[in-house]
Amino acid sequence: MSSTPEPPASAVPGARVGLDALPLRPDLRGRSPYGAPQLDVPVRLNTNENPFPPPAELVADVTAAVGRAAAELHRYPDRDAVALRADLAAYLSRATSTPLDARNVWAANGSNEILQQLMQAFGGPGRTALGFEPSYSMHPIIAAGTRTEWVAAPRRADFSLDTAAAAETVRSRRPDVVFVTSPNNPTGQSVPLADLRTVLDAATGIVVVDEAYAEFSSAPSAVSLIDEYPDRLVVSRTMSKAFAFAGGRLGYLAAAPAVVDALLLVRLPYHLSVLTQAAASAALRHADATLKSVRTLVEERHRVADGLGALGFDVVDSDANFLLFGRFPDAGAAWRAYLDYGVLVRDVGIPGHLRVTVGTAEENDAFLAASRGLAEGAADGKDQR
Amino acid sequence: MSSTPEPPASAVPGARVGLDALPLRPDLRGRSPYGAPQLDVPVRLNTNENPFPPPAELVADVTAAVGRAAAELHRYPDRDAVALRADLAAYLSRATSTPLDARNVWAANGSNEILQQLMQAFGGPGRTALGFEPSYSMHPIIAAGTRTEWVAAPRRADFSLDTAAAAETVRSRRPDVVFVTSPNNPTGQSVPLADLRTVLDAATGIVVVDEAYAEFSSAPSAVSLIDEYPDRLVVSRTMSKAFAFAGGRLGYLAAAPAVVDALLLVRLPYHLSVLTQAAASAALRHADATLKSVRTLVEERHRVADGLGALGFDVVDSDANFLLFGRFPDAGAAWRAYLDYGVLVRDVGIPGHLRVTVGTAEENDAFLAASRGLAEGAADGKDQR
Repeated sequence: MSSTPEPPASAVPGARVGLDALPLRPDLRGRSPYGAPQLDVPVRLNTNENPFPPPAELVADVTAAVGRAAAELHRYPDRDAVALRADLAAYLSRATSTPLDARNVWAANGSNEILQQLMQAFGGPGRTALGFEPSYSMHPIIAAGTRTEWVAAPRRADFSLDTAAAAETVRSRRPDVVFVTSPNNPTGQSVPLADLRTVLDAATGIVVVDEAYAEFSSAPSAVSLIDEYPDRLVVSRTMSKAFAFAGGRLGYLAAAPAVVDALLLVRLPYHLSVLTQAAASAALRHADATLKSVRTLVEERHRVADGLGALGFDVVDSDANFLLFGRFPDAGAAWRAYLDYGVLVRDVGIPGHLRVTVGTAEENDAFLAASRGLAEGAADGKDQR
Repeated sequence: MSSTPEPPASAVPGARVGLDALPLRPDLRGRSPYGAPQLDVPVRLNTNENPFPPPAELVADVTAAVGRAAAELHRYPDRDAVALRADLAAYLSRATSTPLDARNVWAANGSNEILQQLMQAFGGPGRTALGFEPSYSMHPIIAAGTRTEWVAAPRRADFSLDTAAAAETVRSRRPDVVFVTSPNNPTGQSVPLADLRTVLDAATGIVVVDEAYAEFSSAPSAVSLIDEYPDRLVVSRTMSKAFAFAGGRLGYLAAAPAVVDALLLVRLPYHLSVLTQAAASAALRHADATLKSVRTLVEERHRVADGLGALGFDVVDSDANFLLFGRFPDAGAAWRAYLDYGVLVRDVGIPGHLRVTVGTAEENDAFLAASRGLAEGAADGKDQR
């Protein structure tokens, strides 16, 4: 397309200076970008995507909606995305039996942006955010990106939340933002409403219940507690997982309308494109069809957990679309062994453990076959687990 | 769609608490959300949009590209948007006669997100950003959102940049980030390369040359200076204006590859959806057709400026798709008078002045007719200008 010839690799403008020559913030020096390796592997079970492509009628509807929106691409989008928020509220009202409307909902380019906006409004320099680790690794990264001090509190050895200890920590540390991930990523357990109430009662700041994987869980949603804790509870959600919309980048939250008012003060204007707004609303019209995959994945989760257990692995109980399992003497070596089988899983940095996304039946078969290989290798003294 | 009945306006969960009940950051209290009023007015000349809808073949191509991408919506996008960045680099290489490749370019959801990422990497708490005001009002807002101290330096009374004074201010204040907007919004003047060099030579931090309106100007782009100032120059651009892609939300920058490496450390992973990446690449394939509107708008800009001048208005020379004009004894009253004529212009907060976007010939005729009305009202002693 370009009439300019591609320059040799080293010859692009400015290529002679490295990162060290730039006036980068000192706290960023030596850091590496976040992200799982994006490798071209036959069986990719590393980022908790929904393995089922969107139904053909959803693709057609998204395409038609985008086509209509594209005729007005020269105009800025609705800055407050009111129509999409109403659609999200209607879905969430049905899913949680809680009567929300657009004023209770805010949307952004993925739940990461939702969480970043929350930290800009309620965290930031001189403030603290607290999470119970291991949990979603973006929480401390987003805290750092907004210069919020991160406080890591522990979970039990079995990765469950010790609610009494959690409430005591919240009471003594008085964090400005508390993250509770339910179901927790990368471990899988949900937090019951009674336990959430214990944490909420202890909090003086905002409590973000990150429900990215809620559709895979039968536990009740924290959305039902918003009216009880309007001045502190925020429930974040995403269309990336159950909705099979990871590529569309749509995260959202439910909270009291005042929380949405607060985020209007920090959001970049026109942050959500007309394409995103149109595509997400179209995808929501197919919620029933898309969410059918959730039941399949929950059944497959049980099958994979049972299969791993039968091979002698320890498997953490999961309400999500992934399983944390072990134990490996060297999780990094085991990760590479899976890769040799053509299966990409995730080394989430928990010693002795790996995380696998529940895929299609065929992908899960390939994963279980690889797991059998690793188990037999270990039995043969190859020490891969 | 929802089986849940719509609740009465006051009854949604949490509606009983207001913003004052939340633990909002103190510096956000009492603030109002950014943004021009989104009013339903016949002639909207307030946000510097391109008035010409995208050509039908662009709409068709964007729609087809999105349709292909939608089949893979269940997968996360390319986190680094390499294909789109290569397309942007090819366009910018042609437009500026500077041989860039994907390593020189970074993209985000609008140039606001580009600027926010730059401030996260090079600004932030304990650091300062400096701009020459009046200029793009989002610069200080994004600085505040990243807790970067904002230093406002003046322009001349005629809104042009006093380069010697600017360099002296940069030398004495040593800001971590300097913004130079060229053409400047909301005043319209470009900054010549020689003047940019004077500012760059004085700078010890990053210099962001915001070229959102560059396609409307015949002045050379700062992109040609990247190889000369690789450790400090960043040129930001947008597809919102000349490309008629405001709804698609695609901002980008050109710089040394090390600057892009720095932004990888602060960007939210998967910030750009597959839809955005596909749509923007498709739109770039129609650059020649879209950019034809630029010539028309530049001609119209001259016509509108001449028309305003003939009516007795002061008009600031502009290289962009808007004009700053005056003088009004009360710019707010004049803004409302235009609105009464069905013409939405922008009160940018400069005493005695309003900003008008160059629209279609018909829109500009309506604006000039309204301007004549205001001028005659003033002559009749109605004191609207």
